[in-house]
Amino acid sequence: MLMTGKDYLRSIQDGRVIYVGRERIENQTQHPAFAGGARTYAALYDLKCDPSLREVMTYEVNGDRCAMYYLQPRSQEDLRRRNRAHRAIAKFCFGLLGRTPDAIAGNITGLSMKPEVFESEPGGSRTNLLNIYDHLRRDDIFATYAIVPPQSARNKDYYQSQGLSQPALRVTAEDDRGVTLNGMKMLASGAAYAHEVLIGNVMPLAPDQKKESITCVIPLNLPGLSLWSRRPFNRAGIREFDNPLTHRFDESDCMLVFRDVHVPWEKVIVHDNAALSRNIYVQTPSHVMANHQCNVRFAEKLRFLIGIASLVTRATGARDIPVVRETLGRLAAAEAGYGAMIDGQIEAFHQIDHGYVLFNRRYLYAALHWALDNHSQLVDTVRELMGGGQFQFPASIDVMDDPDLRSVFESLWTAGPFGAIERMKLFKLAWDLIGSDHASRATSYEKLFVGPAFAVRNYNFVNAPWDELHAIAEDFMKTYDETDRDPHGGADAMNPVVR
Amino acid sequence: MLMTGKDYLRSIQDGRVIYVGRERIENQTQHPAFAGGARTYAALYDLKCDPSLREVMTYEVNGDRCAMYYLQPRSQEDLRRRNRAHRAIAKFCFGLLGRTPDAIAGNITGLSMKPEVFESEPGGSRTNLLNIYDHLRRDDIFATYAIVPPQSARNKDYYQSQGLSQPALRVTAEDDRGVTLNGMKMLASGAAYAHEVLIGNVMPLAPDQKKESITCVIPLNLPGLSLWSRRPFNRAGIREFDNPLTHRFDESDCMLVFRDVHVPWEKVIVHDNAALSRNIYVQTPSHVMANHQCNVRFAEKLRFLIGIASLVTRATGARDIPVVRETLGRLAAAEAGYGAMIDGQIEAFHQIDHGYVLFNRRYLYAALHWALDNHSQLVDTVRELMGGGQFQFPASIDVMDDPDLRSVFESLWTAGPFGAIERMKLFKLAWDLIGSDHASRATSYEKLFVGPAFAVRNYNFVNAPWDELHAIAEDFMKTYDETDRDPHGGADAMNPVVR
Amino acid sequence: MLMTGKDYLRSIQDGRVIYVGRERIENQTQHPAFAGGARTYAALYDLKCDPSLREVMTYEVNGDRCAMYYLQPRSQEDLRRRNRAHRAIAKFCFGLLGRTPDAIAGNITGLSMKPEVFESEPGGSRTNLLNIYDHLRRDDIFATYAIVPPQSARNKDYYQSQGLSQPALRVTAEDDRGVTLNGMKMLASGAAYAHEVLIGNVMPLAPDQKKESITCVIPLNLPGLSLWSRRPFNRAGIREFDNPLTHRFDESDCMLVFRDVHVPWEKVIVHDNAALSRNIYVQTPSHVMANHQCNVRFAEKLRFLIGIASLVTRATGARDIPVVRETLGRLAAAEAGYGAMIDGQIEAFHQIDHGYVLFNRRYLYAALHWALDNHSQLVDTVRELMGGGQFQFPASIDVMDDPDLRSVFESLWTAGPFGAIERMKLFKLAWDLIGSDHASRATSYEKLFVGPAFAVRNYNFVNAPWDELHAIAEDFMKTYDETDRDPHGGADAMNPVVR
Amino acid sequence: MLMTGKDYLRSIQDGRVIYVGRERIENQTQHPAFAGGARTYAALYDLKCDPSLREVMTYEVNGDRCAMYYLQPRSQEDLRRRNRAHRAIAKFCFGLLGRTPDAIAGNITGLSMKPEVFESEPGGSRTNLLNIYDHLRRDDIFATYAIVPPQSARNKDYYQSQGLSQPALRVTAEDDRGVTLNGMKMLASGAAYAHEVLIGNVMPLAPDQKKESITCVIPLNLPGLSLWSRRPFNRAGIREFDNPLTHRFDESDCMLVFRDVHVPWEKVIVHDNAALSRNIYVQTPSHVMANHQCNVRFAEKLRFLIGIASLVTRATGARDIPVVRETLGRLAAAEAGYGAMIDGQIEAFHQIDHGYVLFNRRYLYAALHWALDNHSQLVDTVRELMGGGQFQFPASIDVMDDPDLRSVFESLWTAGPFGAIERMKLFKLAWDLIGSDHASRATSYEKLFVGPAFAVRNYNFVNAPWDELHAIAEDFMKTYDETDRDPHGGADAMNPVVR
Repeated sequence: MLMTGKDYLRSIQDGRVIYVGRERIENQTQHPAFAGGARTYAALYDLKCDPSLREVMTYEVNGDRCAMYYLQPRSQEDLRRRNRAHRAIAKFCFGLLGRTPDAIAGNITGLSMKPEVFESEPGGSRTNLLNIYDHLRRDDIFATYAIVPPQSARNKDYYQSQGLSQPALRVTAEDDRGVTLNGMKMLASGAAYAHEVLIGNVMPLAPDQKKESITCVIPLNLPGLSLWSRRPFNRAGIREFDNPLTHRFDESDCMLVFRDVHVPWEKVIVHDNAALSRNIYVQTPSHVMANHQCNVRFAEKLRFLIGIASLVTRATGARDIPVVRETLGRLAAAEAGYGAMIDGQIEAFHQIDHGYVLFNRRYLYAALHWALDNHSQLVDTVRELMGGGQFQFPASIDVMDDPDLRSVFESLWTAGPFGAIERMKLFKLAWDLIGSDHASRATSYEKLFVGPAFAVRNYNFVNAPWDELHAIAEDFMKTYDETDRDPHGGADAMNPVVR
Repeated sequence: MLMTGKDYLRSIQDGRVIYVGRERIENQTQHPAFAGGARTYAALYDLKCDPSLREVMTYEVNGDRCAMYYLQPRSQEDLRRRNRAHRAIAKFCFGLLGRTPDAIAGNITGLSMKPEVFESEPGGSRTNLLNIYDHLRRDDIFATYAIVPPQSARNKDYYQSQGLSQPALRVTAEDDRGVTLNGMKMLASGAAYAHEVLIGNVMPLAPDQKKESITCVIPLNLPGLSLWSRRPFNRAGIREFDNPLTHRFDESDCMLVFRDVHVPWEKVIVHDNAALSRNIYVQTPSHVMANHQCNVRFAEKLRFLIGIASLVTRATGARDIPVVRETLGRLAAAEAGYGAMIDGQIEAFHQIDHGYVLFNRRYLYAALHWALDNHSQLVDTVRELMGGGQFQFPASIDVMDDPDLRSVFESLWTAGPFGAIERMKLFKLAWDLIGSDHASRATSYEKLFVGPAFAVRNYNFVNAPWDELHAIAEDFMKTYDETDRDPHGGADAMNPVVR
Repeated sequence: MLMTGKDYLRSIQDGRVIYVGRERIENQTQHPAFAGGARTYAALYDLKCDPSLREVMTYEVNGDRCAMYYLQPRSQEDLRRRNRAHRAIAKFCFGLLGRTPDAIAGNITGLSMKPEVFESEPGGSRTNLLNIYDHLRRDDIFATYAIVPPQSARNKDYYQSQGLSQPALRVTAEDDRGVTLNGMKMLASGAAYAHEVLIGNVMPLAPDQKKESITCVIPLNLPGLSLWSRRPFNRAGIREFDNPLTHRFDESDCMLVFRDVHVPWEKVIVHDNAALSRNIYVQTPSHVMANHQCNVRFAEKLRFLIGIASLVTRATGARDIPVVRETLGRLAAAEAGYGAMIDGQIEAFHQIDHGYVLFNRRYLYAALHWALDNHSQLVDTVRELMGGGQFQFPASIDVMDDPDLRSVFESLWTAGPFGAIERMKLFKLAWDLIGSDHASRATSYEKLFVGPAFAVRNYNFVNAPWDELHAIAEDFMKTYDETDRDPHGGADAMNPVVR
Repeated sequence: MLMTGKDYLRSIQDGRVIYVGRERIENQTQHPAFAGGARTYAALYDLKCDPSLREVMTYEVNGDRCAMYYLQPRSQEDLRRRNRAHRAIAKFCFGLLGRTPDAIAGNITGLSMKPEVFESEPGGSRTNLLNIYDHLRRDDIFATYAIVPPQSARNKDYYQSQGLSQPALRVTAEDDRGVTLNGMKMLASGAAYAHEVLIGNVMPLAPDQKKESITCVIPLNLPGLSLWSRRPFNRAGIREFDNPLTHRFDESDCMLVFRDVHVPWEKVIVHDNAALSRNIYVQTPSHVMANHQCNVRFAEKLRFLIGIASLVTRATGARDIPVVRETLGRLAAAEAGYGAMIDGQIEAFHQIDHGYVLFNRRYLYAALHWALDNHSQLVDTVRELMGGGQFQFPASIDVMDDPDLRSVFESLWTAGPFGAIERMKLFKLAWDLIGSDHASRATSYEKLFVGPAFAVRNYNFVNAPWDELHAIAEDFMKTYDETDRDPHGGADAMNPVVR
């Protein structure tokens, strides 16, 4: 059953514990730091209910409409359907929310497409996984994930030598009903807004880290669980005009702190198996399914970015200068090339087990790497195109509230055909995209959300068909050797052969 | 009728005039500077006749088999067929020949798909164009082109003020049978091996350059026409082992010098129309059709390059060092990303006039730009991976001809499991790909063969949907204004709307 | 007479009009947005009075101690003295304040070293310039500048065609006592803290922009003058621990709005001369003198940046990974290379008119360009080294105020030998250097404070000795010609000659 | 006693064994592959005897004039003297010869400035070192070095397991008179032209590689020693006009093959001490002294490169296009910045033991890194500025020998004021600098001659004053802590303190 935005807003007022510094947030849908974000997520729920988008955003399962992002694709056309749904969501938020409901949905759907992996080793539960998948899809759940140990946990020996309890989340007790968890997990983006969270491990664990292998999908209001938010960028007193993107698109990032949190067995999908805990992502379509959303999201952000870059140059009058046109041409090439890398994943899709199909894996990782490798420089290019423009404007649009200041502002800041307010609006928007606190967090996010650069390069390395690539040169080298002496001319040249 | 390699070699011994410096080349199929190349092109003709590749390389026209690269595509599958044929050719020559027969074939086929452009203005001949297309296809012709004025021609005023004849090719006389041409055209790659050449103008002409607008497709042995070759890289005495790529893949570049060359009217497709002379490429599918071959060729070169890069690191023992793996991962991401940009052109194809279809134009230009922008650095990365390896080896494999030297060589140059000869073979190959004269010409070629970088950026600029991209931000800015005061929280937040 | 910090703070409470949005700031030394900055500037004044720094920071003029940055250098050692004073100031603020008192002091001192330029054309006043220089030096004045027209002013025709008054600052009336100014000037960094401001034009004016050529040095509290601040980054409620750099080093940027501001003649140095208005900077040592401070400041920032980068890698445990060491080695090379570019300016100093000496001009512009060209990427490298570290920490250190939260924080966030608070302190500091609003403004500042990139490249272009550089190749080409035939071996080789 | 060029040419006809492939070179001063280089080195010897350069190129030792590059510097002025001598040599060969006589002279002179290092451990000989230094200086010797094991030697275990003799050079026997050496050493640039060679190890050896630690300075004509040259780029039939740099500046690179070569004890400076074998370079001024020459050489190459880049743009008419000017400005900034990094080494020199002085070590390594990191891209920029220019010209200037071709060439290739020959001369020169085989070898050389990039970054890493850099941030962090609450405003702000 699809939720409306209103249903959604009610559903996340579930008593979860969120801290912003020492402040306990009572209702995230009303608090200045989170209300703007909550409203945006609610609007996404409404978008899914929009009748005109019914075929784009949903599909039928046993007579019910479900969110398209739970679709298990069986044809090239199914891949296009998922792609279109991701795109509609990404367009709505200009690619600025990394953790929309379709993100982790891709992950879980990917797990459900090869559930036998959960039976391949002890500690996995295929049944629980499939039930969880059904529940998320049926109940229109927004799940996020937290699948990395805290940096503070990476020095195990120290804790043992000091007799300290370790910060990494682990099972500290078990009973008939389930497991008890203690410790910390990072970094749940969207946790202030999601319903549930997938807890797991995307980085390999050592064999002796069995107790940390716990993988489960749980509500964010479980007793004992608290969400420690990084500093929100939105706050009371910021005018939407001055920070329009911060206002709507601060998705939140939270450390999850567990103090004797009890999780029932039916929510557990991996337990006491360090290797399996990570393998489920790479031995199933999970990682690929999830990251296609990342690609699509980034593509929409790119479109937003270069549209704004072009508008900025129009407003400064620089757009007609050849070198600026060339810069815009370069940005346009980047945007089109990235789009091509996504469409290529559909053209060159893989047929996999159980009749399912998958986006081209190598193209997907190439696109991930491209984004990570180029985002900072794209932002820097736009920064350069803006010059010092944004610092010329008043600290706040509240100058309009004072008639005298307003008159000065409108007369001195108007630039030819571009009105003072219009210019300020554009520059504040552009700055919120590339220069504000919110923008800066995004710049870090684009660098790390799939893992550090070396990990993304490693995905590209391990998926490359090295034997095939080596063979190109090796086969060629077989066609000549050190004994050949006069390779040119002669009768031979009249007998070309395919070699 | 398809030619065999033997037919082809006979056919290009047509009396054409080629100069290498002051030396007149009598028979390019036998001369050390060209025989290796000729043999490679002949092998490409044989490849096309290979029965096992019949469906890949050819298609049926009126009961005859024709080269696939003359196919006018009417469906997504037709695009795939062209793509596959290009790929088979590019694989055969590792993407190292830019001017294979399928290159200009794409150009002319593109012209034939919108022949009405030749009727849109005076001076164009639709009939001649279509007849020429038929002739090339039917007679299995290898055409190249020369469509840029010599650098020396870019200072018109000077020549006029000095009373000198201008170097740019132009019509100097006309009669009933045709036109007489004088001057020079640059830079016909493959001219030593092709049958015919498209003469034209890819750079805009000034309106008063009518006489330079001449566009025609002519045999390379016309009386009065001579081909002035740049220094060939192949020569007698070079062992294939020492320069295996130079030996086979030096495609030649020639300046075309016209001295009273007479061209019959039926070979002329544009005459006395400066604007039309250029517009035919961009107002028809010509430019896009031709450049898809460029993309495919480059992709195969990339595959060859990274295969060799990986083999080199294996031979030096560096492949297991994390930072080297990361570099290889980065190269693999580049290769896969480029492949995706090509496949994306098929997935997002355009439906155009007359029931034809076309590769996605923006994706194609993005891929062109990527190649131009990244090639030098890719080569530089491989250079870095090679270290000084190539300079450690003897000047020539002819050391093997001397028993004493051979014994020293085999004992001291062997490196663990990698034999001395094997290592030398790999490093000489790698160097011929990235470091030799031949390689260096290729590095320049990749930078300029579609025109200078600013022109390629301009193709990306002019094809970008700026209005659509602007609208993304403009529509967003309409959703809020300077009068909004307290955007957060409140009853409003409970009424999310799609905006 | 040198001021103390206390003197200084009193002196800037001078009734100047500062707006932050619609809010009028009554006393910038007490307002949360500016008090931190004011305190830092005051500390710089105290630094200058520190007896232990007497020889570094001051020199004697007619028995008085004056700030070293007013020294007119007459020897290489004098250049070192200026360099040391700049360095002491830059160290104190970690290179994070661009507009410290020594910045514009360099500018004015440079003007005073070639005052005859003011006599070379009508409208300049040598006497006023020299008197102003004496006053600034004698009275220990902190001057800033505003020497760029607002972006909105760059479309003159529009205003005329619409009958609007133009936004660019101009003389609108003259009388016996002086001139009356109206319009706007951008962008006075440090204006909230400085005593006076140099008004002028660093960009060339059109000949008909005579009235805009007004160049003068005036107090910031002149009646009719108001300072429109961009949004300050400091504010009440931010804990120093959470944003330590923002707290102390937000130097402010203000648009200067003039409404019937009267300036007495003795403060005017250029009037009604469009060309002279700009030439004074490049025809005197002014531009070079001022920009040496920029170089020195940037060098200290670099040192701060890479020190922090290294500490961050130590805290994350990554410092021992080879690829991270390599990155730090790369940063260290950048830092040392930049230092060398500054010291090279002293070694290769110029002897100029009147017995003065000057920092090497070409080396200085090279260093400016290097900073502008590399800063963003340096920041990006540190961002990459930080990973998502900064988002793991609580929103504010106020968690320490709650005993329960504090205990959780201290136990879970401690990482081996690195305590929770210590880690948070480091990451908050690093983020304030590269990721916060304050940091982001700095990233734009480094790109534009000397003008756009093309202008800085132009300084490098016009100062390069092209004739000398051309001659290297031209002289070489004279040593051989097209008639040489057998250049090798032979008797000749035994007669080497120097050529 | 200084040699003349003629003396020098006679002196290197010493019976040494050079192989080019299987060909044994009888007299390198007459062979087409080496005669051009020999002549250049001879000219350098004449340059040193030029009376007008006496003070630049030589200094007095016990009444004799010796080459300045053997000067042990005792003052800043001495550093300038060495710098000037290096510069004169580098200018003469446009920075295109890496291995001029002053290169290894710097190395050995550096060893002689801290000879006690040879006494610090067993196996070193201070006396031999000082005698060798005296001999080189007194006899005006040109020494080169070979201090890296062959790549094939890096898999020791393999050889042992296979019972094979190892390729790395080692002592295989000892007797009263000296040691017997067998194996191979790479890569002696200049070995065809030098008198002697320093054999040693710049890469750390494992403790069990005692026998490989042999370090000695020996003549290149020792019995049993043979020089295996990489392919020379110069050869009979190449006209100087077509490859002017190859013709004069192919310095040669040789693998040194030792077969029972006997070296007398007095030529040995390290024996049977793996650690000392490497430490002598870094624990003495040796590495820094040698690499200052590398810096100076590179600076002159840069000047040559950008002079030619500018001339090329003048010849193509592109120099007035803004974006091209900007590129030239960027190149000029690079050139000036590099010059500054060298002059900075003199301004910030180190006072070291025994009253000697040294170039600033960190600045030197920074400059080395900059060159290695930027050279390829500088070349690529020039390549881009050249476009396809060089391929437009005839294969050889021998077209001038044929009256008919000459007339066509002169009429069609002349471009306005630039004659056909003049243009061809410039483009051939430019191509020989950046595009030919010779140029390509140089591009690899610049990447590896001081070792791989990671090693150069490591020099920068280990020489950085990390404690000092850390302290900047650490001292700052001590000035505030988590207990500060309201840092702004208040009475406190009136009491600024230096902190």
